[in-house]
Amino acid sequence: MSDASMDLVSRILGGDRRAVARLMSMAENDVPGVKKILAELHTHTGRAHIIGVTGPPGSGKSTLVDKLTLEYRRMGKTVGIIAVDPTSPFTGGALLGDRIRMNEVALDRGVFIRSMGARGHLGGLAKKTGDLVKIMDAFGKDMILVETVGAGQSEVEIVGTAYSTIIVEVPGLGDDIQAIKAGILEIGDIFVVNKSDLDGADETARELDAMLDMNPNDSGWRPPIIQTSALSGDGVSRVVEALTEHMNHLNETGNLHKLVRARARDELRNIIIDHIRSLVDARHDSEEFETLVDSIVAGELDPYRAAEIYLKTLEG
Amino acid sequence: MSDASMDLVSRILGGDRRAVARLMSMAENDVPGVKKILAELHTHTGRAHIIGVTGPPGSGKSTLVDKLTLEYRRMGKTVGIIAVDPTSPFTGGALLGDRIRMNEVALDRGVFIRSMGARGHLGGLAKKTGDLVKIMDAFGKDMILVETVGAGQSEVEIVGTAYSTIIVEVPGLGDDIQAIKAGILEIGDIFVVNKSDLDGADETARELDAMLDMNPNDSGWRPPIIQTSALSGDGVSRVVEALTEHMNHLNETGNLHKLVRARARDELRNIIIDHIRSLVDARHDSEEFETLVDSIVAGELDPYRAAEIYLKTLEG
Repeated sequence: MSDASMDLVSRILGGDRRAVARLMSMAENDVPGVKKILAELHTHTGRAHIIGVTGPPGSGKSTLVDKLTLEYRRMGKTVGIIAVDPTSPFTGGALLGDRIRMNEVALDRGVFIRSMGARGHLGGLAKKTGDLVKIMDAFGKDMILVETVGAGQSEVEIVGTAYSTIIVEVPGLGDDIQAIKAGILEIGDIFVVNKSDLDGADETARELDAMLDMNPNDSGWRPPIIQTSALSGDGVSRVVEALTEHMNHLNETGNLHKLVRARARDELRNIIIDHIRSLVDARHDSEEFETLVDSIVAGELDPYRAAEIYLKTLEG
Repeated sequence: MSDASMDLVSRILGGDRRAVARLMSMAENDVPGVKKILAELHTHTGRAHIIGVTGPPGSGKSTLVDKLTLEYRRMGKTVGIIAVDPTSPFTGGALLGDRIRMNEVALDRGVFIRSMGARGHLGGLAKKTGDLVKIMDAFGKDMILVETVGAGQSEVEIVGTAYSTIIVEVPGLGDDIQAIKAGILEIGDIFVVNKSDLDGADETARELDAMLDMNPNDSGWRPPIIQTSALSGDGVSRVVEALTEHMNHLNETGNLHKLVRARARDELRNIIIDHIRSLVDARHDSEEFETLVDSIVAGELDPYRAAEIYLKTLEG
């Protein structure tokens, strides 16, 4: 590793915010050499409690995250916030980071905030979120909050790196709650019905409760349903309590170790496949590859047969 | 190939709609054996004009696609419509296919409509769209319209299979047009300002025009900007003309061949990488892999170093 890279590592471990921001940009842009730095940081990770927060647009996720941050700061814990918006400006959605966060949170030196949009990140957003989490962890943040707007399967992958996942709902979504069942219900460790001052909060909580009854998991953890008003702060301390209980549960049952192991497994698999992909791409302009492409275009070979032939040349 | 698979292929080539629907479901679910069938169909493809239509939610893409379909039917051409919605029900967006299409279109035997959502398709949506296009093409549809809602980078990949791409805008998006420049401008062959009866249509068209001036491409094709009111049908025939002109341009300049070749190249590459990925996954529960995972969890190895070690065992 170069001197500059070593310097960056030691500055991050020493608490230098600018070094952290710089490495995060490098990870986002996947610049050459960043893998070596992340590798170096790896042994300094594993201490933080990683919390995912997801839910539909307008459910008040950012406010909840800010209020959770204030609670944790009061408890003397440092906090990293990673806000991910997989929808681009094209859909009209503003990047989470563009919203003004509470001053108390944004100006607190014990808090580090980073936002990331989807532009140019397709498919890699979950991986890059994982890298940012790793950097925050090595940086020494006690609590890492990963906040992402619900946008289909992608938020499931983005919060996939968390140990505890909070699903934020708001009253009155009605049929939408039915629609989210599949895929979302399973990843929720804590359900929050935010904006509990709105009509229908009790009913939404009851519906969620019924859905959880119908879909029991085998982890031994029954996700609590907590009504909050993130704006006023009502119920936020109960969310903090539930997070602590969930983490204790993960520790006591050995599920935390299983979770950490499953993630290490996924990460290793993805790095291996990325590497092989780059090997294939490096041979991409070889004569044999181009000849096969010509045969496909001419209709002499179908692409599956062409792939078989190419793989044989790789083996040979 | 099994008799059942051969039977499916001949039924599709013979124009059997149920066989087409069945193979599309097989392709969407990536069932074993589907690759062989797609391979068999490959030599029967390459005849259709593939048209991509994308733009923000509410811009009237579906209505435009329906009206284009009616025009093509009047010209005696058959039409396949593939509607892709990369946002899940979780965001509250209805699947395009759930919207009721014009009766004239939906009931016409010369039209085949298929819709696809993102659920469980993450990362593979563009690939699966390509498979559906291939099936429509082998099925003998003259025009294939791929319609997708703008949702960041994903729609760029989804319409990536098209020869001609229409970007639909609506008046009054203002700053959003600026925001879409990057990534979207380059893929547009025809720009449609729909809902041209709304205030600001001329201004939106002028803004697009200025943006295209600032970002000239080197294909020799200057994308036209066409104002339409898809609901009333105003301007739709001019879109059809522009599509014909664009296809002629592609043919005359030899760009069509380049396009077809580039896609064959991408497809071959993706099939090769998929194959290698499945080879890696097949060895996933090997003892050496699990030992490496344990070392990562124990902090003895970082995942990048572990991947290097694993790749060495693959070579050995």
